[in-house]
Parts: sequence; structure tokens; C-alpha cells
Amino acid sequence: MDDTRFAAEMRQRREYAEAVLEKYLPAEEGLQKTVIRAMNYSVRSGGKRLRPVLMNETFRMTGGTAGTVEPFMAAIEMIHTYSLVHDDLPSLDNDEYRRGRKTTHAVFGEAMALLAGDGLQGLACETAASAFDTECSPRVARALQILFRGAGIYGMVGGQTADVENGGRRAGIETVEFIHRLKCGALIEAAMTVGAVLAGAPEDEVKVIGDAAADIGYAFQIRDDILDVTSSTEVLGKPVGSDEKNCKSTYVSLMGLEKAEADVAALTERAVGGLASLPHRSEFLEELARRLAYRDK
Amino acid sequence: MDDTRFAAEMRQRREYAEAVLEKYLPAEEGLQKTVIRAMNYSVRSGGKRLRPVLMNETFRMTGGTAGTVEPFMAAIEMIHTYSLVHDDLPSLDNDEYRRGRKTTHAVFGEAMALLAGDGLQGLACETAASAFDTECSPRVARALQILFRGAGIYGMVGGQTADVENGGRRAGIETVEFIHRLKCGALIEAAMTVGAVLAGAPEDEVKVIGDAAADIGYAFQIRDDILDVTSSTEVLGKPVGSDEKNCKSTYVSLMGLEKAEADVAALTERAVGGLASLPHRSEFLEELARRLAYRDK
Repeated sequence: MDDTRFAAEMRQRREYAEAVLEKYLPAEEGLQKTVIRAMNYSVRSGGKRLRPVLMNETFRMTGGTAGTVEPFMAAIEMIHTYSLVHDDLPSLDNDEYRRGRKTTHAVFGEAMALLAGDGLQGLACETAASAFDTECSPRVARALQILFRGAGIYGMVGGQTADVENGGRRAGIETVEFIHRLKCGALIEAAMTVGAVLAGAPEDEVKVIGDAAADIGYAFQIRDDILDVTSSTEVLGKPVGSDEKNCKSTYVSLMGLEKAEADVAALTERAVGGLASLPHRSEFLEELARRLAYRDK
Repeated sequence: MDDTRFAAEMRQRREYAEAVLEKYLPAEEGLQKTVIRAMNYSVRSGGKRLRPVLMNETFRMTGGTAGTVEPFMAAIEMIHTYSLVHDDLPSLDNDEYRRGRKTTHAVFGEAMALLAGDGLQGLACETAASAFDTECSPRVARALQILFRGAGIYGMVGGQTADVENGGRRAGIETVEFIHRLKCGALIEAAMTVGAVLAGAPEDEVKVIGDAAADIGYAFQIRDDILDVTSSTEVLGKPVGSDEKNCKSTYVSLMGLEKAEADVAALTERAVGGLASLPHRSEFLEELARRLAYRDK
């Protein structure tokens, strides 16, 4: 798929994800409107909307047509956003800027950013649960559990915990794999698995999709480690060399650049191979998996 | 009900709530075990377990027998606990002690306390959603939405937001009522409403119970304001006069002590009257409502 066509297909899907998300954002009114403004500011900070796009693409690919996927698309982006808001706080990464825009606590203060993250996670659960109003079925119930397991201590929060403890000391490759697979990979795995489950895909397909998603997420994070060494601050839009500066073990510092590149390729080949083995394929999804792995920023 | 009997009945219910909660607490293992230890430390810090006790008592009173209430009991206590962990953080109340024990961030550091709160809210959603494994029904779906609405920006988080903005300036009685009804009342209302909904109580009973719970929660907070003026640090176990010191408007500072006492009595009478009008009553629940309103600490 050439760059122009991919860009057009990606834009169309991102815009759909944003339109869905907007439907579920709360009105900025009432005596609690400051926290709602902080939540909406955070959600509207842009980004690729990768998780809802992956979820919806998997849902469509596996034959999904029901309205249940939309509340889950909104919910997973709310979860991703809350994690960024809390990660940026002074007690974690202490970042003043993200994607060239002031972070939530830099605009609204620490207390409001903390509450905005809490509000977003709560709203994510309420929003996902609203899918039951359309279809009260075991598959919606299962999707809800998969989503919050991927977001929680056995997923994103668990990976973040190990990452915090990795700061300033030298971890081994098992720890780095754990962090990469959980901190970012778990929510990508949840995104695609939820899509397949809501569509009612057979169990063997759900398994293939979940495994492919886990590989995509892991490769994505190894690429992050590679770019921190090989890219420039201008291209990346954020400081490079930060892992080295913070004495963090990374895939590259432990395995070397060549091995890291080879493993990204192997993980991506395995993921795309898995997706290509399914009875119904999405050319866009396979292309997206490749482009995430070989991105230059 | 005399003090001895009430204490015995309360202890029995609290112990049951704690046994239920323990079943849903995660094992302290894996590379993320620090956050899990912080979560369990927070949950095991004691307290009255008021919300799961109120939920279960309402569930039993309205004829509930299914196993669906237990995951919701655990979930609401996890939500209450996450809110305490985040409230105690330096960017909010900056408390080093709670109930005579070091707060979570004082023991595990700010980053871990932030993540422990996030992990608890996520686990609360996953735990409540596990009720679908027992019974996949619209009433479980509705209970889940009620719980997270009560916890979120239209409930607890919304009240907390208004409370943060109330610090250091003088708010009117509408703002104080908003804070009291949402910050504490909304989760108490959710507790009892979830109990009734899970039990399958008729709509008119659900409404009476929700209204009574809202009054109980509001009266509880007005009593808090009264005790901050009339009690002593020794009896209360926390510093009195803190509202005045922080220039916070309270029910007492705006309405006077006499009116505050009269309104606690009126709210409680209305709540107990509502509960007493139901076809099935719980003597314990009515007694608990009264004792919460007239407590001296």
C-alpha cells in the first residue's frame, strides 16, 4: 500500500474514532466543570487514536456489525488518555509538554490532573458498560473484563509499576520484556481482542488475533527504544537519549541495535503472518502493523 | 437496639464484608508486586466497610439471594479505598496518617500510591464485571453503570473537584450541598441502589431506597462539619477546626450549629421514614442510619 493511500485510509479511520469519542465526552457544565474541562482537554490533545482504530478494524474484519464496539472504542481511548495524564504528573515523568502541547497538570494544576485521570478511568468503565444497553450478552461482559484486565495491574498499570522501579537501576531483559509487553502491549492486545470478541469471532481466531496484537505491541516498544538511540530530537518531537540519561535498561542497551532490529522484524512477520492466516483479512490492518514497526518517529 | 446488640450485628456484617473483599484481592507476586502490595495495604487499613455493608443489607432486605452482590461489595470498597489513597496525596490533602496508620504514599512513595489508586479503580471495574459470570442480566449491567456513575464526575470525583475549588475561598450553601451530596453521598446512594437493583426490587422501591441513601449520605457529611466544630482531637482521632483553618465554607459556618443539627435530624427522619415504608424492613439498616447521623466521632 503506497503512502498516499495508507495516509488516506488511516485518516478516515482516525476521524471516525474521534467522532465516536466526541459522542461520549461529557458536557463542560455544573460545579465540577473544571475536572470535565481537564478531561476533555486531555482527550482532545490529538494522537493517532491507535487503540480504537485497531479495535474497530479487528471488529469489522471478524464480521462485527453491532453498535457495541463504539462505547468500547471511546472507553479504551479514555483509558489510554488517563494513563498519559497520570504518567505526566510530577511524581512520575514530570512532563510539561506532550505532542507540543502543555500537559494537563501544566494547564489545570496537579490536583485537577489527578482527578481528571480518575474521572476518565471511571467514565471509561461506565461508557463501556453502556454497550449492555444495546446488547446484554456474555460477549459484552467478556469484552469489559478483557479491557480492564489489559488496563490494570496485570496489564498497563503493572507495566508502569515495573518501569518506575526500573528507573535509575539496571534491569535484565526479562524485566524489559515484561515492561514492554505490559505497559503498552497489554492495551493493544486488549483493543484487538475486544474487537474480535464483540464481533463473535470463534475462539481460535480470537487467540490468533490476541497473539498478533501482543507481538505488534511488543515490536512497537522495541522500536521506541531503537528510536531513542537512532533518531534526532527534531524528527521525534521529544528528547532522544533519555533512557541512557535516566540509566534505564532498554531492549537496545541489553541486546544491541542489530538484534533489536532483527527482533522487531521477526515479531512483525509473525504478527502479520498470524493475521494473514485468518479466513477474513484486512489489508489495512496488516499494513498498519508493518508501519508501526518500521516507523521513523 | 441497644449498643451491645448493634455492635455485635455491625461486627458480624463488617467481618463478612472483609471476608468477601479478601477473596478479590490480588496475590502479591510478579514484577508488579510493589503496586499490589500498596493496593492491599490500602484496602487492609481498616475502616467501617460502610459501603459494602449498606449494599449487602439493602440487597438482603429487598430479597436478594444471588451471588452477584459479592463482587459489587468488593468493587465499591476498592473504589472508596482508591479515593482515599489519591485524596491523601501531597497534591490534594497531603496527609501522612489515616486512622492512625501511615498513608499509602507515606509508605510506598507518591508514584506507587498514584498507581495503586489507578490499579484499584481498574480492579473494581473488572471485579464488578465478574458478576456477569454468575448472572448475565440487565440488572447486573445497570448496577455496574450506577456504581461507576456514583464514583465518577457526576458523583464522588465531581464532589471532590468542587471541594478542591472550595479550599481557601468562601462558597455558598448550594456549593456546600453539592460537595456533601456528591463527594460522600453519591457512593452511599450507589451502594444501596446497587443492592436493590441486584436483588430485583421493583422500581418504586429502588427510588425510595436511593432517596433514603442520598439523605443518609448528606446527613453524614453535615455531622462531619458539626464534629469539626464541637468535638475534640482526642475523641475524633483527627485534628478539629481544620475547615475554619483552611477557610472552607461548611454547613455549620453558613447555617449555624442549631440549624445544622435540626437538618441532620430532618434528613435522618425522612430517610428512616422512607425505609420504614417499604414492604420488607431491616431493623439494622434503620438503626445504622440513625447511628451514623448521631455519631460523636
